[in-house]
Amino acid sequence: MARIALAARFQQVITPNALRSYLAEFISTFFFVFAVVGSMMSSRKLMPDAASDPASLVLVAITNAFALASAVYISASTSGGHVNPAVTFAMAVGGHISIPIALIYWICQMVAAVMACLLLKVTVVGQHVPTYAITEEMTGFGASVLEGVLTFALVYTVYAAGDPRHGALGAMGPLAIGLMAGANVLATGPFSGGSMNPACAFGSAVIAGSFKNQAVYWVGPLIGAAVAGLLYDNVVFPIQDSSTGNADGIVV
Amino acid sequence: MARIALAARFQQVITPNALRSYLAEFISTFFFVFAVVGSMMSSRKLMPDAASDPASLVLVAITNAFALASAVYISASTSGGHVNPAVTFAMAVGGHISIPIALIYWICQMVAAVMACLLLKVTVVGQHVPTYAITEEMTGFGASVLEGVLTFALVYTVYAAGDPRHGALGAMGPLAIGLMAGANVLATGPFSGGSMNPACAFGSAVIAGSFKNQAVYWVGPLIGAAVAGLLYDNVVFPIQDSSTGNADGIVV
Amino acid sequence: MARIALAARFQQVITPNALRSYLAEFISTFFFVFAVVGSMMSSRKLMPDAASDPASLVLVAITNAFALASAVYISASTSGGHVNPAVTFAMAVGGHISIPIALIYWICQMVAAVMACLLLKVTVVGQHVPTYAITEEMTGFGASVLEGVLTFALVYTVYAAGDPRHGALGAMGPLAIGLMAGANVLATGPFSGGSMNPACAFGSAVIAGSFKNQAVYWVGPLIGAAVAGLLYDNVVFPIQDSSTGNADGIVV
Amino acid sequence: MARIALAARFQQVITPNALRSYLAEFISTFFFVFAVVGSMMSSRKLMPDAASDPASLVLVAITNAFALASAVYISASTSGGHVNPAVTFAMAVGGHISIPIALIYWICQMVAAVMACLLLKVTVVGQHVPTYAITEEMTGFGASVLEGVLTFALVYTVYAAGDPRHGALGAMGPLAIGLMAGANVLATGPFSGGSMNPACAFGSAVIAGSFKNQAVYWVGPLIGAAVAGLLYDNVVFPIQDSSTGNADGIVV
Repeated sequence: MARIALAARFQQVITPNALRSYLAEFISTFFFVFAVVGSMMSSRKLMPDAASDPASLVLVAITNAFALASAVYISASTSGGHVNPAVTFAMAVGGHISIPIALIYWICQMVAAVMACLLLKVTVVGQHVPTYAITEEMTGFGASVLEGVLTFALVYTVYAAGDPRHGALGAMGPLAIGLMAGANVLATGPFSGGSMNPACAFGSAVIAGSFKNQAVYWVGPLIGAAVAGLLYDNVVFPIQDSSTGNADGIVV
Repeated sequence: MARIALAARFQQVITPNALRSYLAEFISTFFFVFAVVGSMMSSRKLMPDAASDPASLVLVAITNAFALASAVYISASTSGGHVNPAVTFAMAVGGHISIPIALIYWICQMVAAVMACLLLKVTVVGQHVPTYAITEEMTGFGASVLEGVLTFALVYTVYAAGDPRHGALGAMGPLAIGLMAGANVLATGPFSGGSMNPACAFGSAVIAGSFKNQAVYWVGPLIGAAVAGLLYDNVVFPIQDSSTGNADGIVV
Repeated sequence: MARIALAARFQQVITPNALRSYLAEFISTFFFVFAVVGSMMSSRKLMPDAASDPASLVLVAITNAFALASAVYISASTSGGHVNPAVTFAMAVGGHISIPIALIYWICQMVAAVMACLLLKVTVVGQHVPTYAITEEMTGFGASVLEGVLTFALVYTVYAAGDPRHGALGAMGPLAIGLMAGANVLATGPFSGGSMNPACAFGSAVIAGSFKNQAVYWVGPLIGAAVAGLLYDNVVFPIQDSSTGNADGIVV
Repeated sequence: MARIALAARFQQVITPNALRSYLAEFISTFFFVFAVVGSMMSSRKLMPDAASDPASLVLVAITNAFALASAVYISASTSGGHVNPAVTFAMAVGGHISIPIALIYWICQMVAAVMACLLLKVTVVGQHVPTYAITEEMTGFGASVLEGVLTFALVYTVYAAGDPRHGALGAMGPLAIGLMAGANVLATGPFSGGSMNPACAFGSAVIAGSFKNQAVYWVGPLIGAAVAGLLYDNVVFPIQDSSTGNADGIVV
C-alpha cells in the first residue's frame, strides 16, 4: 500500500513538466549565482580593498537586483521562479509544493550554484572565488538574525508577487523581488554580507573551500523564509479558496 | 446616540480586513525604514567621510528607490501601500480613509520605524544609527520648504499610481513611486537629507536619541502631502463619481 | 469668418480638460527639472571636481532616468506626458496636437523649468545653479549634432511608448522613456552635457544668468525630435487609420 | 522552378513590413551601440584609469541595461527587437525567422554599429573609440567560454520574454532582457569585457581599426545563443502548436 503510494509519488516527480521545472530552476539559479559571485570577483579585481568602497557595494547590490529579477522572470511560468532554497523551503512549509519536489529543487539549486562558481574559478584566472563573510564586530548570532530578517522580506515579496489577487501588479512581480533583494544588500552588505540565499553561500563556499560561518547563511534565512510564508498565507492575506495562481509553481 | 456611532466606528476599525491592513502597513514600513537607515549605516562603514562621496549618495538613493517600490508593492492590495505618514495624512485629508484608521496607520508606521532602527542598533555593533540632517548652510525653513516640495512630488505620484483611470500604466505604479523618491534623494540628499517620510526621520531620531531639526521632517512633508492630494483630486484630475480604485486602500 | 474660427480655436484651448493638461505638464516638468538640476548641484557639493568622477555621472544619469520615468508617468493620462519642449514640437509637427496648444505647453514647460531652478537657488544656499556645458575639445556644431541624435532616440521612444499597437508593452512606456534618457546621459554627459530637453537647459541658464551655448540645446534637439516623429509615423510604423491612442495627449 | 521559388522568396524579403523591420532593427542597434560605446568613452574621459574603478564598471553596466531595455522596447512590435546578431542567429537556427531575413538583419545590425561608432568618433574629439578587450590573465578560450555563457543567459531571457505563454509578465519582457545584460556586464566586465553582442564588438573594432580578439566576441556568443534557443524551444518549454506570438518577430 505504502509502496504503491511511493510509486505514485515517484511518478509525479518525474512527469515531463516536473523535469522541465527542475531544468528551469537549475538554469535560473546558475545564472543568478554566476552574476552575483562574478560581480564580487570583478569588484575585487577593480579595487582590491573593496571593503571600503561604496561604489563596490553599489556594484554588487545592483547585480543582485538585476540578476534576481531576470532569473525569477525566466523561470516564473515553468518552475515558479524560486532561485533560492529558502524560497523553496517556505513554499514546502506552506504546502505549495510537495516535499519530494522541494528536495529535488534544492538539489538543482545547490548543484547549479556549485557549477556556476566552478565556471568562474576555471575561466577567470588570477582571482579567488570569494565567500560571504560577516564583519569583525558582528557576532554570528547577530548576523544570523539579520539574514533571517532580510530573507523574511524577500520571501514575503515572493509571496505577494505570486499572489493572483494582486491583479495588474502581478506584471512587475519579478522586478519587485529583485528590487527588494537589491535594497537589502545595500542595507547590510558590509555587515552580514546580505546573502539571503543559502545556495549562493554554499556554492561559493564549496569552490573556495571555506565553510566558515556557513551556518549563518542557512539558519537565519530558512527560519525567516518559513515565518514569512506562513504569516502571508495565514494572517496578512489568507487564501479563501484553493484556486491559487502562479505562486505555486507546480502543485503536485 | 454619539455612543452608538462611536461603537459602530470602533467596529469598523477592528474588522479582520482592517487588522490585516495594519499588519501589512507595519511590515512594509519596517522593511522600508530598515533598508534606508541600514544603507546610511553601510555607506558610513565603507567610507566614514560619506558626506563628500557621490557613490555614497547613489547608494542611499538607490536603496530609497528599490525599497520604496518593493515596500509599496507588497502592501498595495492589502493596505493601499502608504509606507509613509505623509501619504496617510494626504489620504485622510482627501477623505480616502477615515480619521481613526489613519491614526492607527500612523501608530503602526511609527512603531515599525522605531523597531527597524532598534534592530539595526542591536545587530550592527560598532555603528551608530544615523539621523537625517540638514547641511550647515541651509536654514531650517529652507530645508522644510525643500522637504515639502519633495513630498508634494511623492504624494502626487502616489495619487497618480493609485488612479484606476491610468489603465495599463497602473501595473508600474509602485515602481513610479519608488523612482520619484530615488530622484528626489539624488537631488537634495546633501542639502536637506531627502527624507520625505516623517516615520523614517522619527524612528532614527528615537533610537539615536537626537531630535534636532525633527520639525523639518514633519511640517514640510505634511503640508506638501496634503496640498498634493487636494490638487490632484480636485483640480488636475477630479473624480467624477465615487467609484475609485486602489488609491483608497480601505474606504470605511 | 476668420474671427469666428479664431474664437472657436480659442475656446478649444481653454476647455477644462485643456487647462488641466497645462497644469499637469507644468507639474511634471517642474519636478523633472528640479530633480535633474538638483542632482547636478548635489554632485558638485559632494565633489567639487565632479567633472572627473564617474560616480557623479552615474548620479546625474540615474536621476535623469528615474525623474523622467516618474514625471512622464504622472502626467501620461492627463497631458500626454511630454515634459520636454522637443517632444511637444515633434507632436505638433506630426499633427498630434494643435499649434496653439503646443505653444501653451511650451510656455508651461519654460515657466516650470525657471521656477524649479529658482526654488533650488533660493533654498540651497552656497551652491550656484549649474548650466549645461560642452567640453572644451568639442565644437558647438558637434555638440548640437550629438544632442540632436540623443533627442531623436528619446522622441522615437516616446512615440513607441504611446503607440497603442504596442499592446501589453504599453504598461512600461514611461519606464522605457526614462531608461533611454538615462543611457544617453551616461553616453554623452561629459561631452555635450546630455540635456535632450531645451526647457531644462533654458531654466538653468535663466537662473544662472549664462546663455553660453544655449543654441546647442535648442537647434539639435528640435531637429532631432521632428525627424524622429515624422520617421516613426510615416515610415517605421505608419498609422493606418486615425484612431490613435495616448501618444496624442489631447487632440483638438 | 528554383528560379520561381527564389523570386517568391525575394518578394517576401522586400514586403513593406519587412523593409520596416530592417529600419527598426537598424535604429535600435544604432542607439544601443551608440550608448554602450559612448558610455565607455565617457567613463574614460572622466577617469583615464577606468580599469581600476568600480564606479566606471557600474556606469558601463547600467548603460547596457538601460539602453538594451529601451532599444528592445522600441522595436519589439516592428522587428522583434533583436538588436544583436547572436539573437538573430538563435532565431534563425530555431526557425523563427527565415535565413534571408536573418542575413539582412545581420547587415543592418553591422552597419548600424559601425555608423554609431563613426558618429562618436567624429563628434567626440580627443577620445579614441575603445574596443572590447580581455584581461591579461585570461586566455582567449576562457573569454570565449565566458562570453558564450553570458550570451546563453541573454538569449534564454529573450526567448522567455517573447513567449506568449508568459501572460501578464510579457509586459516587462524588454526590461528583463536589459537587466540580464546589465547583471552579466557587472559580473564579467573586467575579465572578458561583457559584450554578448558581436555587432557591438565589430562596430567598435572597425572604427578603432583593431580586430584583436575579435573571434572571442563571435564564436562564444553565436554558440551560446544557438544552444539557448534550441534548449528553450525543445526542452524547457516546448511549443505545442505553431501559433506563437511576438518572439518570432516576422515569420515569413
